[in-house]
Amino acid sequence: MSENTKEKRTEIGTLGEFGLIDHITKDLPTVNPSTIKSIGDDAAVIDHSKEGVTVISTDTLVEGIHFDLMYNPLKHLGYKAVVVNLSDIYAMNAYPKQITVSLALSNRISVEAVEELYEGIKSACEYYKVDLIGGDTTASPSGMFINLTAIGVNKKERIVYRNTAKVGDLLCVSGNLGAAYLGLQILEREKQLYLDTPGIQPDLEEQQYLIGRQLKPEARFDMVELFEKNGLIPTSMIDVSDGLASEIFHICKQSGVGAIVEESGIPLHPDTEQMAIKFKMDPATVALSGGEDYELMFTINPNDMEKVKFLPDIYIMGEIVEKSEGIKLHTKGGNIHPIKAQGWVHFPTK
Amino acid sequence: MSENTKEKRTEIGTLGEFGLIDHITKDLPTVNPSTIKSIGDDAAVIDHSKEGVTVISTDTLVEGIHFDLMYNPLKHLGYKAVVVNLSDIYAMNAYPKQITVSLALSNRISVEAVEELYEGIKSACEYYKVDLIGGDTTASPSGMFINLTAIGVNKKERIVYRNTAKVGDLLCVSGNLGAAYLGLQILEREKQLYLDTPGIQPDLEEQQYLIGRQLKPEARFDMVELFEKNGLIPTSMIDVSDGLASEIFHICKQSGVGAIVEESGIPLHPDTEQMAIKFKMDPATVALSGGEDYELMFTINPNDMEKVKFLPDIYIMGEIVEKSEGIKLHTKGGNIHPIKAQGWVHFPTK
Repeated sequence: MSENTKEKRTEIGTLGEFGLIDHITKDLPTVNPSTIKSIGDDAAVIDHSKEGVTVISTDTLVEGIHFDLMYNPLKHLGYKAVVVNLSDIYAMNAYPKQITVSLALSNRISVEAVEELYEGIKSACEYYKVDLIGGDTTASPSGMFINLTAIGVNKKERIVYRNTAKVGDLLCVSGNLGAAYLGLQILEREKQLYLDTPGIQPDLEEQQYLIGRQLKPEARFDMVELFEKNGLIPTSMIDVSDGLASEIFHICKQSGVGAIVEESGIPLHPDTEQMAIKFKMDPATVALSGGEDYELMFTINPNDMEKVKFLPDIYIMGEIVEKSEGIKLHTKGGNIHPIKAQGWVHFPTK
Repeated sequence: MSENTKEKRTEIGTLGEFGLIDHITKDLPTVNPSTIKSIGDDAAVIDHSKEGVTVISTDTLVEGIHFDLMYNPLKHLGYKAVVVNLSDIYAMNAYPKQITVSLALSNRISVEAVEELYEGIKSACEYYKVDLIGGDTTASPSGMFINLTAIGVNKKERIVYRNTAKVGDLLCVSGNLGAAYLGLQILEREKQLYLDTPGIQPDLEEQQYLIGRQLKPEARFDMVELFEKNGLIPTSMIDVSDGLASEIFHICKQSGVGAIVEESGIPLHPDTEQMAIKFKMDPATVALSGGEDYELMFTINPNDMEKVKFLPDIYIMGEIVEKSEGIKLHTKGGNIHPIKAQGWVHFPTK
């Protein structure tokens, strides 16, 4: 655990505002033909007219709210900031093509730190094949703010919304849930230990999977490709950023339906199950109320069940029911409980 | 001068994150047919394929850097945040159609204050006929951050870049320059007086024009319409956000040319001239080094001079020359000085 400062430290002021942007974004290649004009003008220019409609999403990460420089390495933070945004584009069943990045930086941040952050941003751009086409960088009196806008494309008829789930649809999810939340709990615990006993070196080796899901999540581009290859269009979709329960509520509220979730159908990684028990938490609750999994939750027409059944990493965990039946969990013990919409709450209620 | 808090104060926490967004954006109408899906999903969906290519710009306003809640009324601040972004779209010779708004808010900000900010945002959206299609709202440990992304459209062949000015082109500007900068100086002076003698009520009546240019600027949509009506496409264009000198440098550097500016050609409002003298500043320097005018600076082919000559509110102030001739000011006194690229510098150099 360190504040991630390299030995060399160049103050941002020595480069100036334009100098910093030039320095970081010079010679940035673009890979998508739809990117007509990238960084360097009043605005970027893109042309998605041959590919379909344009999908736009924006998201902000705030120091002290969404990340902590005590344990978020800057490179991973840059990577994650991109992933979080791309996840929203995939959740529309679209392909991200471009991003813009806006940064507000306090003078605590050195040029080297910004470079590290951008290393992560660029690395994600390469992996997900998106072009960094613009943004702005400004000063902040305190704390770091990262705002990203992701721009994607797909044919109009392939775009999937939240408000189109139908009674009888199967409720599915990719990957597994709850790991990122437990990763955060581990990091918070280690931070506290470190603050109590400075110099202590935490051994996080065993918890690599959970911590990795928190610090360097991936977005499910493979699902969108899988849907296309298998001639499948989900009836509704959302990404799991605020926790499964919260996402189910969004889908149900906007579609005017209810849902029944099988506790036994919620996919959990073995490390998640073990660590939940160590923390004296119920694994299903961790999946329902955690967050930042960046998996895709979606509903499919029951006629598409055969298409989904043998696809990798897709789990059927419930069914869409009439609105009057509410949103409920069918536990492994055979009980039925209403699910509460408890997601991330960034604004303290008191 | 006040912190702009109404009597009623509702804490943001009482609504929660989703509650606040819902509360502010419910029943928001859209006016552009290209807006297919607005607020309420993982991303917004737009379709510009019938109208041309998509132009995207993003900009951040940071409390204590770009605005001061001591003298920026929140409604005006919201309006200005939109205008600043739309100006970038107009500077591409495109028509803005959509915006997204991301806010980071400290708990110093009440629900009523956010509503006031959004009143300004919505008012600008109505005036400029753009749809607010998304964004996010999150907590900030301190200070307010406003990030906007503006999305516009025009036919590909009508988009105007910064790097296409040619030797012999005429250098033009809309409106007048320097007023917003002097407006800021007046507000800063009054703030200081207020802090020194609390309770004092400043008399800003006489300086309404200059202060208005600072607090509630407008973007030049009329110029883009005027160009289209008169069959004119500028050879290059940029908006004046960082000061005339800085914008000339951008155009010249990116186009690989030089420029000669006639001091007598720089348009100044009478109030700007008078106030500059009061502040013991040279009016031309105020226009060159000030900023936030949000006028359009552009170059035209000399063959188009007849088209421009009789158009309202367009001023020819110089000429594009060979790069080797540098960037120079021809003063009223007949002298020639090199122009320095001194725009807004948000990062202190020391």
